[in-house]
Amino acid sequence: PESKLPALGTTIFTQMSALAHKHNAINLSQGFPDFDGPQYLRDRLAYHVSQGANQYAPMTGTAQLREAIAAKTEQIYGYAPDANTDITITAGATESLYIAITALVSKGDEVIAFDPSYDCYAPAVELAGGVMKRIQLQPPEFKVNWAEFADQVTDRTKLVIINTPHNPSATVWSHSDVEQLWQIIADKHIFVLSDEVYEHICFAPEGHASVLRHPELRQRAIAVSSFGKTYHMTGWRVGYCIAPAIISAELRKVHQYLTFSITTPVQLALADMLREAPEHWQELPAFYQAKRDRLAQGLENSRLKVLPGQGTYFLLVDYSDVSDLDDVAFCHWLTEHVGVAAIPMSVFCAAPFPHKLVRLCFAKQEATLDAAAERLCQL
Amino acid sequence: PESKLPALGTTIFTQMSALAHKHNAINLSQGFPDFDGPQYLRDRLAYHVSQGANQYAPMTGTAQLREAIAAKTEQIYGYAPDANTDITITAGATESLYIAITALVSKGDEVIAFDPSYDCYAPAVELAGGVMKRIQLQPPEFKVNWAEFADQVTDRTKLVIINTPHNPSATVWSHSDVEQLWQIIADKHIFVLSDEVYEHICFAPEGHASVLRHPELRQRAIAVSSFGKTYHMTGWRVGYCIAPAIISAELRKVHQYLTFSITTPVQLALADMLREAPEHWQELPAFYQAKRDRLAQGLENSRLKVLPGQGTYFLLVDYSDVSDLDDVAFCHWLTEHVGVAAIPMSVFCAAPFPHKLVRLCFAKQEATLDAAAERLCQL
Ligand SMILES: CSCCC(=O)C(=O)O
Ligand SMILES: CSCCC(=O)C(=O)O
Repeated sequence: PESKLPALGTTIFTQMSALAHKHNAINLSQGFPDFDGPQYLRDRLAYHVSQGANQYAPMTGTAQLREAIAAKTEQIYGYAPDANTDITITAGATESLYIAITALVSKGDEVIAFDPSYDCYAPAVELAGGVMKRIQLQPPEFKVNWAEFADQVTDRTKLVIINTPHNPSATVWSHSDVEQLWQIIADKHIFVLSDEVYEHICFAPEGHASVLRHPELRQRAIAVSSFGKTYHMTGWRVGYCIAPAIISAELRKVHQYLTFSITTPVQLALADMLREAPEHWQELPAFYQAKRDRLAQGLENSRLKVLPGQGTYFLLVDYSDVSDLDDVAFCHWLTEHVGVAAIPMSVFCAAPFPHKLVRLCFAKQEATLDAAAERLCQL
Repeated sequence: PESKLPALGTTIFTQMSALAHKHNAINLSQGFPDFDGPQYLRDRLAYHVSQGANQYAPMTGTAQLREAIAAKTEQIYGYAPDANTDITITAGATESLYIAITALVSKGDEVIAFDPSYDCYAPAVELAGGVMKRIQLQPPEFKVNWAEFADQVTDRTKLVIINTPHNPSATVWSHSDVEQLWQIIADKHIFVLSDEVYEHICFAPEGHASVLRHPELRQRAIAVSSFGKTYHMTGWRVGYCIAPAIISAELRKVHQYLTFSITTPVQLALADMLREAPEHWQELPAFYQAKRDRLAQGLENSRLKVLPGQGTYFLLVDYSDVSDLDDVAFCHWLTEHVGVAAIPMSVFCAAPFPHKLVRLCFAKQEATLDAAAERLCQL
């Protein structure tokens, strides 16, 4: 067949994890924990399976899980979405992002995203016939210049895709960033797709700048989150999106014919966990900040320069004192010869990204982080 | 937002299950068992969760599951797809159907389907910008007239969607149907999407007419199947598609950015089940034929006429001796006043379908089937 996505290869995550496996390297590339999720959560899954919760869930998600998400959202962000009309459970955050883009973007619509940007946004826009306009942000801060953003907005702009805490840069937005975005789009017919899957892994003193805190912007926004990151279970594949009823109705039309519904006993286990163990996500920032600091300290005596990370379970390191290779070549070399797999930053940018930066995942046990740091100190 | 699928409502399955719930009716509408799947399979899920198989599976599916599917396919259909390149695990069969359509159909391409047709095909074609051409089949046999089909094929035809055993009509294709399809498309650039989710629930003496048995057609076909039906676990949401490497590569580009990967411990449990308990699917036709016969016998003294069903866990019944209502109105009335929920056939047809036929699901315990039959005998 002719390809509808001719330029697309296998994601960098699959490539680098395969390379790590091949060379028996410590895999700090693809983002996933090398430890397990809470025992209670795993026990609840076994329980619901044994109790026969094994048939189709409702298309929008189980009531238990949608209600638990609504309660938690109110508690954290002071905003209670309607569990019936505003919350949709999906196959990971990935499906939420896909259905939002597919439902909102029509042929010729422009979609603004900030590079580096996570790799699943652009293919969905392309399949919908939309046109990506990418604004390149620069290290080390990856700050948006809001005047530059305003210049990119046109009559054809339909959607802006934002992401904080940001993968892959590990930076976070301030509440003022969200407000500035709102000021520019307030009088236009523009929606905002907000990828907030690392909402609970945020180390910034002012906290996570969720669009759900913004009383006006949230009327135009689809906020996407994920349980994989929060509960150390990236393989369970349950995410969700929160959007006003009128937007959710359109997303659900796509979801209904794309996956229909999500694994029932997993949804019920997650609902129990949200309700019964709120301390888990409350303790998550400290849990991950300790890992971030351990890796950063482990690299203090290396020739890598660690960039300040404010969220996600990633850190950027600058290897310009170590090698002249471009970042893709460096990641291959590092995996093969040093035994540590990382992710190059340039693959998340449409424009040339000549910086010597790679991303390391620190969602790992201390022993893994220490072993990786030891290898990296030999560079 | 403007709707990209303006005509679309909530699926008939969600509607009728909700109505059944509201009126406390016996729910023979949406197709799902009211009994549980195999104990061994449920135990294996709990096992893999406890063993820490909770992080991302490979994008294409776990090797264990793809290899088990390849082995089983060879055993049943005499054809061994390549586990690495030809098999992709998806979020239910629904995602397989969606990614096949999205990857293959471009703006203006024509897609031929046979009505009544399952409700998820057309929205995916519409989102891809394709044009549905529906060929209406007629009860009681719902036989394709191959000359009529040949007339509908044009230079723009990109894809033909077929489905046997057929939901909702419960009819099956013969091997000669598959051969006649092949003869008509052999010299054209046309793909075949074959929905075979009821492959193991086939009562026809000549067996299931899989496209995978056809040495030439399978080079152009995507065969879709599902574990939900085979293992009585419709809520686990794991399906798969088998297609030649060159086609699979395109489907996977969509899958990669749509769900990325499928629940890991569920995949591992299913692989164990396929390998260790082949008797399960071998016994499935007899298991379901007994249920079909029980429901049909229970209706013998009713004023409903049961159509001969050859596959799936559905039966059609003709209510023309009972009511003049159209089928949608009749299903509402039946749920509310008789306490049995069914699915109207006309919703699966683009053309008017004036027949007085509704679909009953017999994937139910004997007590459920008997209770429903008792109520229906009072009509
Ligand atoms: C979906 S696999 C990639 C996991 C991830 O989000 C990342 O590594 O950035
Ligand atoms: C995806 S819900 C519908 C289940 C089903 O396939 C049917 O009832 O036909």
